[in-house]
Amino acid sequence: MKNILMCDPNISEGKDKKIIDEITSSIKKSGGIKILEVLPDEDHNRTVYAYLGEKQDVVQATKNMAELTFEMIDMQKHKGDHPRLGALDVVPFIPVGGTEMSEAVEAAKEFGKFAGDKGIPVYYYEDAATRPERKNLVNIRKGQYEGLAEKIKDPEWTPDEGPAEFVAKTGAVMTGARMPLVAFNVNLNTTDLSVAKAIADAVRHSKGGFRYVRAIGLRIKEKDQVQVSMNLTDYTKTPPSIVMESIRAQAKRYGVNITGAELVGPVPLAFMEDIMANYLHVHDFSINQFIETNLID
Amino acid sequence: MKNILMCDPNISEGKDKKIIDEITSSIKKSGGIKILEVLPDEDHNRTVYAYLGEKQDVVQATKNMAELTFEMIDMQKHKGDHPRLGALDVVPFIPVGGTEMSEAVEAAKEFGKFAGDKGIPVYYYEDAATRPERKNLVNIRKGQYEGLAEKIKDPEWTPDEGPAEFVAKTGAVMTGARMPLVAFNVNLNTTDLSVAKAIADAVRHSKGGFRYVRAIGLRIKEKDQVQVSMNLTDYTKTPPSIVMESIRAQAKRYGVNITGAELVGPVPLAFMEDIMANYLHVHDFSINQFIETNLID
Repeated sequence: MKNILMCDPNISEGKDKKIIDEITSSIKKSGGIKILEVLPDEDHNRTVYAYLGEKQDVVQATKNMAELTFEMIDMQKHKGDHPRLGALDVVPFIPVGGTEMSEAVEAAKEFGKFAGDKGIPVYYYEDAATRPERKNLVNIRKGQYEGLAEKIKDPEWTPDEGPAEFVAKTGAVMTGARMPLVAFNVNLNTTDLSVAKAIADAVRHSKGGFRYVRAIGLRIKEKDQVQVSMNLTDYTKTPPSIVMESIRAQAKRYGVNITGAELVGPVPLAFMEDIMANYLHVHDFSINQFIETNLID
Repeated sequence: MKNILMCDPNISEGKDKKIIDEITSSIKKSGGIKILEVLPDEDHNRTVYAYLGEKQDVVQATKNMAELTFEMIDMQKHKGDHPRLGALDVVPFIPVGGTEMSEAVEAAKEFGKFAGDKGIPVYYYEDAATRPERKNLVNIRKGQYEGLAEKIKDPEWTPDEGPAEFVAKTGAVMTGARMPLVAFNVNLNTTDLSVAKAIADAVRHSKGGFRYVRAIGLRIKEKDQVQVSMNLTDYTKTPPSIVMESIRAQAKRYGVNITGAELVGPVPLAFMEDIMANYLHVHDFSINQFIETNLID
């Protein structure tokens, strides 16, 4: 298992099944790719793809799907609730299975050059960012597609690849390298939403909590419970067991108990290293010890 | 990932590198197999192989290595410290990656018939056993190769396959289906061996502990510590978190702390389901959520 990357591109089309399906086919076209998810959202008018494979196969699949996306989606006609800068809005490359982040950065740069050569403005973000203010894609996307014609003229927002001018049909592409997100939700046996909100605030980065946690408090109607709903944005730097035990301590403060939790969607094997160390005291567990990893070339 | 089996045959040869290597080659010969380990032991004069793949490939590889073993090893000349009944002493088939135990039983039966047809006496054990007293291979092996000529005449020990008579060159084969063993060792910050022995006794089945735990207390000289050294023989029925928390509670009784632990060798992914449920409260985690499992056909 070496040089495995995941790629989760987001396109600005969530309604037209024909376009969505043709783009799915283009991802598979050159081989070596496993598609994990295709998640269209009609309100956002946006589809998220997730696929993985060896680095070169993933880069090639992304080039294929990008070409088709630039051809089929016209941003001049696009409306949707989700903020976006272009037809192929975001293209994150994600290291999995022990792959180094530097490989994901290389993949983003190779793909960025390709898109730039096709005449599309490209911004690099997160670990592929060329300037600190481009690390967070929210900054790059500020003003959205509609504001891009002006923003792109600002020398501070000259694209990293491609033309320094607005391309009306496609808008711009943001591509980068980042850790896999892990969606982790913890349920509490109370209907008091303020408890979930207070605990979410205690763990979320923007309110003084952990550096790599995004969190909100939610009501789960079907269960008469509340939930701390989180994204762990870098489980290697903010380990899940530390977040879990912090939530457990906070819950105690409010006299509530944890009734259950969910890991939603894909979880990288390396996520288990912290769990093994913290709860089973196994400090040097290697994901290659999992028997089934022997089945991966 | 479907119908994946592991097979861990033990042969009665641990010294002759040529024989050991030729048998390794015979395992790979028909393809589809990943070899995890080849562990020769000179004192035991015994080698343990571990390999995995799809059921039919694993059965075929085992037939290939068995034929060569019957040909190359002569039990009439064998000496070694480990108890044994034959040249190909034990052949366990082990379900991994969500495979059902019934598939491992089928594999054992197909292999057992093959060996029987070659004229070798075969006993089924563990989940493939045909009688309760044959479940435990220690019972079948009692008297060893040297006692087999007599034992095999006893109607209670008529082989399940093959001739009901002693075959001097090969002895008998024991083949069966069982869960993967997980080797789990917990270290304690004391030099008092009696503490490790007392905790081992508290968790081990033979002393009144958990049904699927084998355990001993050991001294770890290089660390000035003691260790509870365990084999978890069915982690689905005796979950690791329950063993871990029992050891933690016992350690407290003796005023000692857990300083670390080891998972030695291969660990099945499904081992994590209990850990996820107990420590992260995720009660319905599926190993298919691990991103990397998508890379397995």
